[in-house]
Amino acid sequence: MAQQKITKQSDDFSQWYIDTVLQAGMADYAPVKGCMVIKPYGYAVWEHMQQALDGMFKATGHVNAYFPLFIPESFLKKEAEHVEGFAPECAVVTHGGGKPLEEPYVVRPTSETVIWSMYAKWIDSHRDLPILINQWANVVRWEMRTRLFLRTTEFLWQEGHTAHATEQEAAEEVAKILDIYADFAENYAAVPVLKGRKTDKEKFAGALYTTCVEALMKDKRALQWGTSHHLGQNFAKAFNVTFQTESGGRDLVWATSWGVSTRMIGGLIMVHGDDKGLRLPPKLAPHQVVIVPIYYSDEERQTVLQKVDALTAELKGDVRVKVDDRANYKPGWKFNEWEMKGVPLRLEIGPRDVAENQAVVARRDKGPKEKQTISLNGIKPTILDLLADIQRGLYEDALKFREENTFQANGYDEFKEILDNKLGFIYAHWCGNRACEQAVQDETKATIRCIPFNQPEEAGQCVYCGKPSEMRVPFAKAY
Amino acid sequence: MAQQKITKQSDDFSQWYIDTVLQAGMADYAPVKGCMVIKPYGYAVWEHMQQALDGMFKATGHVNAYFPLFIPESFLKKEAEHVEGFAPECAVVTHGGGKPLEEPYVVRPTSETVIWSMYAKWIDSHRDLPILINQWANVVRWEMRTRLFLRTTEFLWQEGHTAHATEQEAAEEVAKILDIYADFAENYAAVPVLKGRKTDKEKFAGALYTTCVEALMKDKRALQWGTSHHLGQNFAKAFNVTFQTESGGRDLVWATSWGVSTRMIGGLIMVHGDDKGLRLPPKLAPHQVVIVPIYYSDEERQTVLQKVDALTAELKGDVRVKVDDRANYKPGWKFNEWEMKGVPLRLEIGPRDVAENQAVVARRDKGPKEKQTISLNGIKPTILDLLADIQRGLYEDALKFREENTFQANGYDEFKEILDNKLGFIYAHWCGNRACEQAVQDETKATIRCIPFNQPEEAGQCVYCGKPSEMRVPFAKAY
Repeated sequence: MAQQKITKQSDDFSQWYIDTVLQAGMADYAPVKGCMVIKPYGYAVWEHMQQALDGMFKATGHVNAYFPLFIPESFLKKEAEHVEGFAPECAVVTHGGGKPLEEPYVVRPTSETVIWSMYAKWIDSHRDLPILINQWANVVRWEMRTRLFLRTTEFLWQEGHTAHATEQEAAEEVAKILDIYADFAENYAAVPVLKGRKTDKEKFAGALYTTCVEALMKDKRALQWGTSHHLGQNFAKAFNVTFQTESGGRDLVWATSWGVSTRMIGGLIMVHGDDKGLRLPPKLAPHQVVIVPIYYSDEERQTVLQKVDALTAELKGDVRVKVDDRANYKPGWKFNEWEMKGVPLRLEIGPRDVAENQAVVARRDKGPKEKQTISLNGIKPTILDLLADIQRGLYEDALKFREENTFQANGYDEFKEILDNKLGFIYAHWCGNRACEQAVQDETKATIRCIPFNQPEEAGQCVYCGKPSEMRVPFAKAY
Repeated sequence: MAQQKITKQSDDFSQWYIDTVLQAGMADYAPVKGCMVIKPYGYAVWEHMQQALDGMFKATGHVNAYFPLFIPESFLKKEAEHVEGFAPECAVVTHGGGKPLEEPYVVRPTSETVIWSMYAKWIDSHRDLPILINQWANVVRWEMRTRLFLRTTEFLWQEGHTAHATEQEAAEEVAKILDIYADFAENYAAVPVLKGRKTDKEKFAGALYTTCVEALMKDKRALQWGTSHHLGQNFAKAFNVTFQTESGGRDLVWATSWGVSTRMIGGLIMVHGDDKGLRLPPKLAPHQVVIVPIYYSDEERQTVLQKVDALTAELKGDVRVKVDDRANYKPGWKFNEWEMKGVPLRLEIGPRDVAENQAVVARRDKGPKEKQTISLNGIKPTILDLLADIQRGLYEDALKFREENTFQANGYDEFKEILDNKLGFIYAHWCGNRACEQAVQDETKATIRCIPFNQPEEAGQCVYCGKPSEMRVPFAKAY
């Protein structure tokens, strides 16, 4: 079977992305407009993401639960900003069991309303707080233009919904979760992120404020990796959720919500991929090591496979190994295939290697000229070290790329010049006025990605209106 | 806070079930008709079920993927029996993104049609087979009368959808999965099951044949625990899925599908529960051991909690331990609470126990008079043994119960008499005629649960029409 070519990133990044996702078997277009199918290889990446995040949520006291897919239309309308933000994107169920419904249901675009209708039932006393619930679920937000993983009508995500006795406690939760998202991005996905607060214009519909982590893709556009919202008492008011305080009064409950989605898979691909296809960080790779046995006779095959079996048995449990023993494909074809699929390490073992008790190892993050020969004696620690090195290396590459594509602009002309020729994160002064933010977006399509937490104060003039500003903020064109 | 009473099983089993599910915090009614909320404690049971099953699926070569929630209405109509079976239960999306849709979407009641539309794209050669895909997802089948876990409009499940080159290979897959379901039921859920084939009347809409595992609840009604279907070439025909054979011809692909759902949680509750509430098998219990520290002064509290912390650290990783150190509740209240929630083992540790380096242990499967005192020296193996013993004991209790409630009926009067007074599984002869099966159901509400695989041949007369029959089949009233 002929191997298909992947468009070069420098020729057409968007087509490179589509080619890579489709040819690596990550996802496919569904017959339903705007929807995708997550294929087994892509879903395995999602499973590793879920496992890591779920462990972090549980280690910080969170539990999982499941709330209904359908939300009565009237619920969505109870919080004014929320309905305005989400109603236009909703899928609406009007018929069920062969009959028209009295009240239409929307398919959840996010679950604040249905969850807070339940919290109203569950919360009565300070002893019922905090509630720290997370849900792994599918959600629907209508899209006509599909971009696999990045923009689809249906996507998978987790949504945390917590309830607290005080504003401060909710704020601490918001920060704790953002730290988890940043930790996961950097230490599992090898994706460096900026941490900060969204501007009021960019915040979640119904939130007091939204915090986020933002990453830079290889086409120098930004991607929102995850968000953690302080919802204040907005949903408690909308659903009348109060609790008896320790001193005997009754207060409204404070809320947070937070989520990351299968969109992260798109980010992972666009941060690490190259012209050969995917490059997956070892911690999230479905196969960390692929072994390609090499032989030219049945006798050689038997010798080599015996060695490969022993090696696989040795690595099992500590390393995710795939053996590609397909008879119908040549070794070179297999090398290309697994490079395209981004497997971090490839081992090649032929009869001579068996005789010498060695294997040839190729790293996906290095060029083909850097193949090494390693001894099979005590190979497990060697492989674990190599995987850790690749994990670290991918992060460092991505960080270097982001730093090389982070700029400062001091005037609007310079700002536009950078946007036109370089893209990336452009740190510019902003007066804090929503009108300026909107004007920049209308004129250049760049948005303020966040107000970074660690940004130093610096006196300057707003890049748009020239009024005084205390801080630079990163602008970028974003997904 | 006052503890609520649970209705006695013998007074009203159905109310006992509702009381138990609600008071143990397993699930709650959602504000959407027919829907439920799976609360954290219930969801944790589901997570343990998922983990065990997912491991079994993967160990037999299956991979997970994700297909869209929405299915174009026209897809459902492509397989005649399938649409007849499912269309009346569908929820229909008619509007999206603020506009009426050109073609309505149904919310998946099961995913054969959308999955086979993709397989048509993915399968071209015998080298693409088999496809062994499973999906963990939510599905919707319209229900007006909710029974938490047992009958809800939306429920969670897994659905496997496999594609094979031959009828025989598909048949082997069907059998392999049924074995997994039986293994899981008996060795994880401690629920003994009958394995067999459904009658044509009871088979899946669109299947060649359906196999199933069936369990008996404590109210002596049957519950279908899981099903594994041979779909023949029906969906391949409907979606025109053919492959090039090794000899160069083109054949239609053979299919299977199989699923178990959150309904199993209802079964788990109804097989093991008693008048105090849940009894959870250790392998699926969110907390396998609850430790209740007992103290009457701050000084005692410190001494006891120090010991409890050391013990928890010792057990961690091997045993799922919960420490109930809530200050506002008395020990007796906590004992009742955790018994109601079905925790297999309870450890009580007070100051005297600390001094003697011991703990009092109470088993949920035994009466309160059988409390023992055990040494804290080398307590881990003792606890693991106790848990294994409880796991085994629950299975044996359930098997004994099923055997005591399994009857033979030789005439229709005897059959009806048993149904009226005893229920349970009633083995009676059946001629194989659908009309007799339907008549029995219409007149008594009993259905044939399966044609058991291991049923010995025996000459007899059909319990309804008196014509010759070669085998008895188990009838029961079922959920």
